[in-house]
Amino acid sequence: MAADDKLPETIYDVNTPAFLLDLDVMKKNVARMKETCDRLGVQLRPHMKTHKTIELGEMMTDGTKTCLEVSTLDEAEFYASHGFDDILYAYPITQQKLDRCRRLAEKLEKFHIMVESPESMEALKTTPRGSDKLWSVFLEIDLGLGRTGVEWDSDMALTLAREAANCPGIDFRGLYVHSGDSYGAKGPDQIRQTGKKNTDKLLQLKVRLAEAGVTCATLVMGSTPGCSHPDDSMAQLDTFSPGNYIFFDAMQKRIGSCEEKDIACRVVCRVISHKKSLNKMTIDAGFLAISHDGMELGLPEGPVIFQGHPELKLLGMCQELGSVGTQGEPLDFSKYPIGSLLFVYPHHSCATAALYDKYYVHSGDKIDGIWKPTRGW
Amino acid sequence: MAADDKLPETIYDVNTPAFLLDLDVMKKNVARMKETCDRLGVQLRPHMKTHKTIELGEMMTDGTKTCLEVSTLDEAEFYASHGFDDILYAYPITQQKLDRCRRLAEKLEKFHIMVESPESMEALKTTPRGSDKLWSVFLEIDLGLGRTGVEWDSDMALTLAREAANCPGIDFRGLYVHSGDSYGAKGPDQIRQTGKKNTDKLLQLKVRLAEAGVTCATLVMGSTPGCSHPDDSMAQLDTFSPGNYIFFDAMQKRIGSCEEKDIACRVVCRVISHKKSLNKMTIDAGFLAISHDGMELGLPEGPVIFQGHPELKLLGMCQELGSVGTQGEPLDFSKYPIGSLLFVYPHHSCATAALYDKYYVHSGDKIDGIWKPTRGW
Repeated sequence: MAADDKLPETIYDVNTPAFLLDLDVMKKNVARMKETCDRLGVQLRPHMKTHKTIELGEMMTDGTKTCLEVSTLDEAEFYASHGFDDILYAYPITQQKLDRCRRLAEKLEKFHIMVESPESMEALKTTPRGSDKLWSVFLEIDLGLGRTGVEWDSDMALTLAREAANCPGIDFRGLYVHSGDSYGAKGPDQIRQTGKKNTDKLLQLKVRLAEAGVTCATLVMGSTPGCSHPDDSMAQLDTFSPGNYIFFDAMQKRIGSCEEKDIACRVVCRVISHKKSLNKMTIDAGFLAISHDGMELGLPEGPVIFQGHPELKLLGMCQELGSVGTQGEPLDFSKYPIGSLLFVYPHHSCATAALYDKYYVHSGDKIDGIWKPTRGW
Repeated sequence: MAADDKLPETIYDVNTPAFLLDLDVMKKNVARMKETCDRLGVQLRPHMKTHKTIELGEMMTDGTKTCLEVSTLDEAEFYASHGFDDILYAYPITQQKLDRCRRLAEKLEKFHIMVESPESMEALKTTPRGSDKLWSVFLEIDLGLGRTGVEWDSDMALTLAREAANCPGIDFRGLYVHSGDSYGAKGPDQIRQTGKKNTDKLLQLKVRLAEAGVTCATLVMGSTPGCSHPDDSMAQLDTFSPGNYIFFDAMQKRIGSCEEKDIACRVVCRVISHKKSLNKMTIDAGFLAISHDGMELGLPEGPVIFQGHPELKLLGMCQELGSVGTQGEPLDFSKYPIGSLLFVYPHHSCATAALYDKYYVHSGDKIDGIWKPTRGW
């Protein structure tokens, strides 16, 4: 409602707090990932979960609106209803979600789902895809991360792959891995080592499956750190499916996936109060504008980066207020008058972006447009 | 889009994850707070920030749609456009927000704002309210919490109150306090002690102001713990302005503001994966469904409460997955088959509610309706 719906002229004119996206930086991030995939000869299946917009779906698929990945059925339905196709719903399927999957599979040329347990395999086997077509299925593999996926070196991995390959209702597409341990790496070298280790494991499993008579058509590996600094061995994979690289964030900078200049998203906010006796000040961005993500780490420098102000640290947040101080040195309040703007690179852009129902997109300082993400499940 | 827009019959039929509100529990919470305020003879000015819906705005104002409090201008505009009046924008005002405040003050019979610094006072003094009317202003007081507000025992408190009282463009309404230190209390007794201490300070300040010739019309004190277990001395205050009591949450239960049966909101989700080798399982609710709030506390029992399953602990979350285990004892997986439902009382309902664009409202197990909150700033 009200003033917010008019397009502000520049990033200095938006009502604070607001979420800013730098169009030029995003274009560079997209071009860089495309070059990486082209160089290695792997297909890029970009993940939509970080931004959830049509505009960036088009940009990340190079205008083709095909070959993408989503984390929720809401996203799948959103992209399907806007003319996108070849969508991988990269999420462990359960019986209760199969109705909506079937409708998506009817609507789309290609819609892929993921299994990782005997229960989900059983659900698929007993729930026909309809229209004499097959469920297009990936097997999710856990390479040691311990999140979801069947353990790569387990007998169950073989069992499930064999079942998928032999089930008449299933088109077994291949193996899918979220290489999430790359988030524990520090710097490009460690990221590449992690990528190499994970690729080795995945290829070992592929061989083991082949020996058991099961052919894997496609090996998909996601994670922005891993795909930003891929080991050469990853050319043996078929597909990369990163998502966060469109925005990057303070966490990715810390890991070494990107530099600060590559971070495309910022929260713009204002200083609204000084607390000189406590050496801190308050900004009009609390946890509903920045997100709690990263606070649990207790980093000495805090979870976010204040652009141009490395001395500042986010100390805490309530719903609509952020408390900003330093790591101990005195705060020079004259540099931060009440009403002045601060630009914040969030710790985790996926968490922060999801808090906004609109993104202000800018080129240079000029606002180009407002993009609206989908939301929900 | 899609299936989600049809009203499910019961809480067991919603697509997961989803946010559930128990109508009967909310009615009890509203009645209890009204009784408390009636007993003490204080006015209730309920805060809307926790739920941000029209329906609960009506319920919390006892159908009058008047005398309420908000944390953002978006909320103020939302309630103003739906026929609510007498709205206190309980947020430190800055120059940049005064244009929208002026429009609200034009539209409404009563619209109140808050100052807490010489800069915000100066902004008010140099920005006429328009239409020969006065700005209706509260002075925010910091009783030691150290967030925003002018320090209660400072000379500045006197200076600002005197300026507000003497400025021809300002109608000085009184003192406003967020009694946030009540969140550090443990149990009703400590909550009451905190309430007593804060009331004492506020009354001392009122006397000091009176001695300086400044009359305070109204003393407003917020915070759900403090208003849920008020000390008798708080009858000397004019107004209570709590908000979270409409839902309560696991944090309020831990503080002692409520019991588990009083928590009106839950995230409903499903078990989607077992990781027996790691003694944990995965639910289809990650940080976009539960929020990170509380993870930074490192509580041994975890931040949320799994209804009916005190043995369960939320270990971690990624965007769309939650990892659930125990405090060490073996998890009995047979009790949590893949596809089964779990009901989660969030750590902080304000943070969790804000993640949803719709709330499923139920009476007993039957879904009564879908309510939609406003969002943004």
